[in-house]
Amino acid sequence: MKKILHLMLFVGLSLNAVAQEKVDEAAVKKIRKEGLENSKVMDIAFQLTDVVGPRLQGSPGLMKASKYAVNQLKEWGLENVQLEPWGEFGKGWELQKCYVAMTAPYYKPILAFPKVWTAGSNGLQNAEVLLVDESDTTALEQYKGKFKNKVVLLYSDAKLPSGFNPDVKRYTDEELEKMAKAEIVVRTGQPAGGPGGNPAMREMIANMRRATYISNKTKEMAKADGAVAFLSINARGKDGTLFVQGGGSYKATDPENMLDLVVSTEDYLSIARLAKAGIPVKIDLDVKSKFHTADLKGYNVIAEIKGTDPKLKDEVVMLGAHLDSWHTGTGATDNAAGSSVMMEAVRILKASGLKPKRTIRIALWSAEEQGLHGSRNYVKNHLTDTVKQWSNAAGEKISAYFNLDNGTGKIRGIYLQENEAARPIFTKWLEPFHDLGAKTVTISNTGGTDHLSFDRVGIPGFQFIQDPMEYSTRTHHTNMDTYDHLYPEDLKQAATIVASFVYHTAQREAKIPRKEKK
Amino acid sequence: MKKILHLMLFVGLSLNAVAQEKVDEAAVKKIRKEGLENSKVMDIAFQLTDVVGPRLQGSPGLMKASKYAVNQLKEWGLENVQLEPWGEFGKGWELQKCYVAMTAPYYKPILAFPKVWTAGSNGLQNAEVLLVDESDTTALEQYKGKFKNKVVLLYSDAKLPSGFNPDVKRYTDEELEKMAKAEIVVRTGQPAGGPGGNPAMREMIANMRRATYISNKTKEMAKADGAVAFLSINARGKDGTLFVQGGGSYKATDPENMLDLVVSTEDYLSIARLAKAGIPVKIDLDVKSKFHTADLKGYNVIAEIKGTDPKLKDEVVMLGAHLDSWHTGTGATDNAAGSSVMMEAVRILKASGLKPKRTIRIALWSAEEQGLHGSRNYVKNHLTDTVKQWSNAAGEKISAYFNLDNGTGKIRGIYLQENEAARPIFTKWLEPFHDLGAKTVTISNTGGTDHLSFDRVGIPGFQFIQDPMEYSTRTHHTNMDTYDHLYPEDLKQAATIVASFVYHTAQREAKIPRKEKK
Repeated sequence: MKKILHLMLFVGLSLNAVAQEKVDEAAVKKIRKEGLENSKVMDIAFQLTDVVGPRLQGSPGLMKASKYAVNQLKEWGLENVQLEPWGEFGKGWELQKCYVAMTAPYYKPILAFPKVWTAGSNGLQNAEVLLVDESDTTALEQYKGKFKNKVVLLYSDAKLPSGFNPDVKRYTDEELEKMAKAEIVVRTGQPAGGPGGNPAMREMIANMRRATYISNKTKEMAKADGAVAFLSINARGKDGTLFVQGGGSYKATDPENMLDLVVSTEDYLSIARLAKAGIPVKIDLDVKSKFHTADLKGYNVIAEIKGTDPKLKDEVVMLGAHLDSWHTGTGATDNAAGSSVMMEAVRILKASGLKPKRTIRIALWSAEEQGLHGSRNYVKNHLTDTVKQWSNAAGEKISAYFNLDNGTGKIRGIYLQENEAARPIFTKWLEPFHDLGAKTVTISNTGGTDHLSFDRVGIPGFQFIQDPMEYSTRTHHTNMDTYDHLYPEDLKQAATIVASFVYHTAQREAKIPRKEKK
Repeated sequence: MKKILHLMLFVGLSLNAVAQEKVDEAAVKKIRKEGLENSKVMDIAFQLTDVVGPRLQGSPGLMKASKYAVNQLKEWGLENVQLEPWGEFGKGWELQKCYVAMTAPYYKPILAFPKVWTAGSNGLQNAEVLLVDESDTTALEQYKGKFKNKVVLLYSDAKLPSGFNPDVKRYTDEELEKMAKAEIVVRTGQPAGGPGGNPAMREMIANMRRATYISNKTKEMAKADGAVAFLSINARGKDGTLFVQGGGSYKATDPENMLDLVVSTEDYLSIARLAKAGIPVKIDLDVKSKFHTADLKGYNVIAEIKGTDPKLKDEVVMLGAHLDSWHTGTGATDNAAGSSVMMEAVRILKASGLKPKRTIRIALWSAEEQGLHGSRNYVKNHLTDTVKQWSNAAGEKISAYFNLDNGTGKIRGIYLQENEAARPIFTKWLEPFHDLGAKTVTISNTGGTDHLSFDRVGIPGFQFIQDPMEYSTRTHHTNMDTYDHLYPEDLKQAATIVASFVYHTAQREAKIPRKEKK
């Protein structure tokens, strides 16, 4: 009985809170009309992908994208539009040529991309493959002096990932329900592979460490000897989908790393098998990259729709996404999708003729991929008390920050980031979008992107729940992260919902409640 | 009642026939042991893919593969092993360099392969893209004279295939049951898009014809003007998987076609969008191919295990698969899989020490991809009465021909090719393999490969039912048709079952019954 009473009280409270929260039906109608019937989100995405190309931090592509965004936001009538430097990032990098082929035992083009911040090949090289097939560091020593002019790879007999599951998926009702019912996870501080952890996990971790050691050691020896290149196996994906990130330091003062190419799983394993069978393998390589060092700074794009209520216009609702990407695709789902949605959301608000009480500020971050640098530095430069490492007076003026960075899938709800007090608010605000599949509010944290920069200093920072689509199987940090992998209807839906959330945050009597400082 | 009585009679007859058919349990045990516990099928497949490379008709790769097969079959103790010419095929072709990249508006490697029998680029060319966006032949005329030094493509706004279904699949019990219950399809001779067909189908066919006309006409004009290359959109697949076949004539006397490159769906659509938006696109091309004209003949690999029964040894059981492939992968599932399984099947029979009564003859065909040329010509040269176009005396000696050419999936049963009399025989012979998933006998025809060359002259020719795996989604005629897309356990199973079928055919009192001549 006690339990039931408690439950009833809780439900009663929640319903009460939801009942108090308001939805501006007229505003939602305008936003839906503009967002769903007059969408420009794919035009924006086309500019940010096909037109500017990869948007790697410090590359000409990112600068072109940033300038496009500045011009576009100005054209839509936003104010205080600027390309704001946030501090020193380091070297930019750009791919200028990439040709890799096997020339013996027969000719075959090899699908490969250099990792970012690795050097080129100094023109066309034809080099023999040297296979390292050792799990023992002492045995590795015997290779010393043998790497000169070689293309080096480690043996692998990895299997391709299974294809029995679909690449693309949406959340099921069951999965969403589970998220809605989730509770705050209390971390025990006990690492799974630590002394008290399970032995299988400990062994796996030990094996991974040994493999990493062997790989690093081999690369080091290869570089010292003057190898032509190091080949790395594609860590994820198959069928021509390559997962490629960084492979060297971007600090201005650090030396260039040796050329390190991620090779498609199929090509890599074939070369490894041939070499292991004692069949000489030769590789043609012509890779040219450019390090950009003239401007080491990073920039965010910032723009505002000024608030119209004299008492509230100094308060701010922020929305944002990172504009930078990796280099092998055109960063369509990571994160032209989020950037386009956020730009489209402010366009919708302007086009709808709505007058927000609070100021709405959009931010397109940079260097997210290397550690949320753009957003962290923005928060540090503007919103944080450097002594207390907590939001300062300007930070207190930010009602909330909304982020989008989980690919191209439509919005299914929102992560509360453990801010229970926001639940009734967001639950209510999702009501007009149940028909578009968005209704789930989860207490859970989600990590890995720019809302964390706000959350860590006590400014409510949220990220939306999005259908996963093929983010983990095909597009995230891959050469297939391109325009055609975007789902237009999903992005339209997302921009519409974000616009509504931002508008309601701007109109709400109070700011979004803060979590207590832990 | 009549119907039920008829059914009971039919079932009774079938059971009776099955009961009469024999399985040699001891032989099956030996075959299973050798095939499942001591398999060499993946070693063979490694040689036929990684080691020799693509096995395009008339290429050095196919000759290497054929010679490997000859040597291997001899080593296993087969007799009359030969590389037998079957007549003139035409020109061979081989890829010697393939580099394609976009250089404006920014640098990006382009995933592309030339169609077979198209010319090279004459060294590295940097050329502007000319987009043709016309569905009207009159409008097309205005492009005359504009193609010189251009890379030409037709506009497309195609969508990527859906990823919501798994790439890899096995037959379900329901699907197999449906096959087992299938009846002979009587063709009406009424084409679906013909005068009496449905209007939507007629319109689709008309549209396809128009598109083909526009494409051919554009290519013709481009060649006449001196274009650098024609780009074709990937007809199937995404994520880096390219479907590429032929694009020119292989007849010795025909001229070389212009360079025609199949470009990945994502790259093609991106170039098309940029060009349509009026943004100048430039392409770097360096494609070199070699036409092989010294030997225009085609060859099959033929080898025998001689029969030991004085009365039956002149009769023959044949098994085979085509050894040739397309050029962008290494033809692993099409059809190193089938070739390896058939080679492994005869290895199993030799290694098991079984003494077949009839002679067993393996054939590895060539030029299957261009129209079953190897098997057709073998049948024509050896087994057909040229006047009657039906099996001759030698053809009458062939009990049956077994073929495998549906990828890497395990055997789930066999197609009767409308030969109802073979049903009780094969039903019985599958009994020892129910535990390995093979039990379905279907009356249906299956087409598209070398058993048809036998079937059409009245020699029982059969093809096995295989799990589809990712044949239609990822590997069939694609750059991803490589060793790692093979399923070792499936190929072991297939070789074991084929060996048993071939052995039982060799031992059976009578030959496999023939269909009546239609």
